Amino acid sequence: MDIKVRKLLVDVHTHCYLPRYAALLRQRTLPPRIVSQNQEGHQLFMYNGQKSASPIGPQYWDRNEKLKFMNLHDIDVSIVSTANPWLDFLDKPSTASQLANELNEDLENYCATSPGVDGFDTMKRLYGFGLLPLIEGIGTEDLLQTVKHITGLPHLKGIIMGTRGVGKGLDDPALEPLWEALSNTKLVVFLHPHYGLGSGAKEAWGDQENGNVLSLGIGFPVETTTAITRLILTGAFDRYPNLRILLAHSGGALPQLSSRIASCISHDPLVSSRLKHDMRYYVSKFYYDAVNYGPEEMGFVADVIGRGTAYSSTPGMRGDRLTGYKRILLGTGKEAKSAKVLETLQAINDVQRWEEEHKDAVRGGNAIELFGLGQ
Amino acid sequence: MDIKVRKLLVDVHTHCYLPRYAALLRQRTLPPRIVSQNQEGHQLFMYNGQKSASPIGPQYWDRNEKLKFMNLHDIDVSIVSTANPWLDFLDKPSTASQLANELNEDLENYCATSPGVDGFDTMKRLYGFGLLPLIEGIGTEDLLQTVKHITGLPHLKGIIMGTRGVGKGLDDPALEPLWEALSNTKLVVFLHPHYGLGSGAKEAWGDQENGNVLSLGIGFPVETTTAITRLILTGAFDRYPNLRILLAHSGGALPQLSSRIASCISHDPLVSSRLKHDMRYYVSKFYYDAVNYGPEEMGFVADVIGRGTAYSSTPGMRGDRLTGYKRILLGTGKEAKSAKVLETLQAINDVQRWEEEHKDAVRGGNAIELFGLGQ
Repeated sequence: MDIKVRKLLVDVHTHCYLPRYAALLRQRTLPPRIVSQNQEGHQLFMYNGQKSASPIGPQYWDRNEKLKFMNLHDIDVSIVSTANPWLDFLDKPSTASQLANELNEDLENYCATSPGVDGFDTMKRLYGFGLLPLIEGIGTEDLLQTVKHITGLPHLKGIIMGTRGVGKGLDDPALEPLWEALSNTKLVVFLHPHYGLGSGAKEAWGDQENGNVLSLGIGFPVETTTAITRLILTGAFDRYPNLRILLAHSGGALPQLSSRIASCISHDPLVSSRLKHDMRYYVSKFYYDAVNYGPEEMGFVADVIGRGTAYSSTPGMRGDRLTGYKRILLGTGKEAKSAKVLETLQAINDVQRWEEEHKDAVRGGNAIELFGLGQ
Repeated sequence: MDIKVRKLLVDVHTHCYLPRYAALLRQRTLPPRIVSQNQEGHQLFMYNGQKSASPIGPQYWDRNEKLKFMNLHDIDVSIVSTANPWLDFLDKPSTASQLANELNEDLENYCATSPGVDGFDTMKRLYGFGLLPLIEGIGTEDLLQTVKHITGLPHLKGIIMGTRGVGKGLDDPALEPLWEALSNTKLVVFLHPHYGLGSGAKEAWGDQENGNVLSLGIGFPVETTTAITRLILTGAFDRYPNLRILLAHSGGALPQLSSRIASCISHDPLVSSRLKHDMRYYVSKFYYDAVNYGPEEMGFVADVIGRGTAYSSTPGMRGDRLTGYKRILLGTGKEAKSAKVLETLQAINDVQRWEEEHKDAVRGGNAIELFGLGQ
């Protein structure tokens, strides 16, 4: 059984816009919205605040399309999440709360009625990350009620969230009760970018026409890096060491900048006195999807996870990619493109020093363990 | 001789504020400025637009202090550059041009009259990166004249510059003649950050008090990453393949984001049609200082350089850190702190799979070759 489990493919970074959500986006007149462009033969486009819109189709709302895509690539299980921008754009807390509850029920149903995995009686093909009504003005009680609701939905294994919290980012003291509540569950928090550099984008990207290359290629990963660093700097992971965080796009630039940030912290008594461990220890306690585009990046992220043992306040032996592989999980990314899936599988396959057991774990075993799939 | 050369220590990232420059900063009433704080016992502080000022002392202007620091750490040669913010804050082009020329002459004198390296008759202990008057309104002719002046100063081996060019960044078409002129010299362009996220900082760093941790830990490396990416996206390195670029702080987040950026480019025909090679090829043609704070980062940067051969439009065999080490050069960073030097030397020493020959090259051999020291 154990060997079989390790050979499953589990995709933890794959998105949907459930029918209820897609319908809402079609009704809107401002981004985010879904628009039919007649000149393109009725193709649908998602306008999401970036310079150009992305084509969008039934793979986002039709479960059969999702399963077809999974079958095409031998993906056994997908842990599906609503794609950005989630509920961030809503302005009424009561609407956001109600919609979160409805969409969480929809997603539970989407997963619960999905086929089982061949040979694994208790495992479904689909699981999900729920949504919280994280908008300005929402009450703490509403957030905690939604967390409680999600914990009662057996096929939802976590929540996906953006970087803005209730308007002031993830280091907002108002979120403290939320982190505490989440740390008392097994839910995995999937942190995902949407805003890039926000108000700094115009200056940072300059005047030349580069489409979405800079905002998606640099802005997105830097947004994730900044958001999780700000949360680390509050000491949240000393107060809630059981919080389970999954970082989109392998943490963006966090692995490469973690030692530099650690150095900056060590020069600032105000900040360093707030933290029990070196920055690199916290970084090694997160989970990272495999959406990092290359075997060098993949191995490096695993090295950075593995070395974290040496940065605890009670340091152990420094590990590397042969221990760090345990926290990297296959993801295929937003676009559900075959080339992307093949590229990611190839990258996993090409990591120097990884044996089949490490690759099997990253392709599925780690996710089965983390999310307790089939239990 | 060859073995001896490889054993020298050469520091390519170390700064000065020459006496003429420090005097100017002491006269100023707005940042950047050097201020004596009486309550701190006449200690001098550099106010540079960050939240807090840094203590600053004679190691920045007194050459004997620089040499003492080098002796302390057995650094044979330093290639000294004016620290940020260079001449960026000046508003009169004629002042900037004149000061650039004077400071370049000062630096030439600082280096030319320095002691020789024991046992290497023709090699000095100090070489330098000159300055260009890169401010808004400067004429192309003034920039080209300064380049020409620097090429006539035998101990200046390159120029240091920030990310703003003449006000619109490094992808400004107005800089085209400058890149062309530089590509016809052997000067190395040392690209260094100063502004972090600029106007986006307030939103990105949020309301909590984190000193300079976010602006220096994330903002600086992201600034370098964005600036060089924007220059790559103009196709500059297809037009001027001989341009020699040295990236501060090992390129910031560029190595980890290069494959993601390459993926974004491949989805944008407008941008990809402008470029002859995959993003990762250009990335592999730069030089990187060793200021990356850890053996995992060091090895990863070398892997990313090494693999670049596979991303040429006429791909060769994919290399790794055993070929990529050739473009990493010892640097000690701004603060001239002993702990930092020891940490960097330790990181070089601890890179997995590197033999002594690779480490010797990074510690000095690569710089001797790149800058033609002692020739």
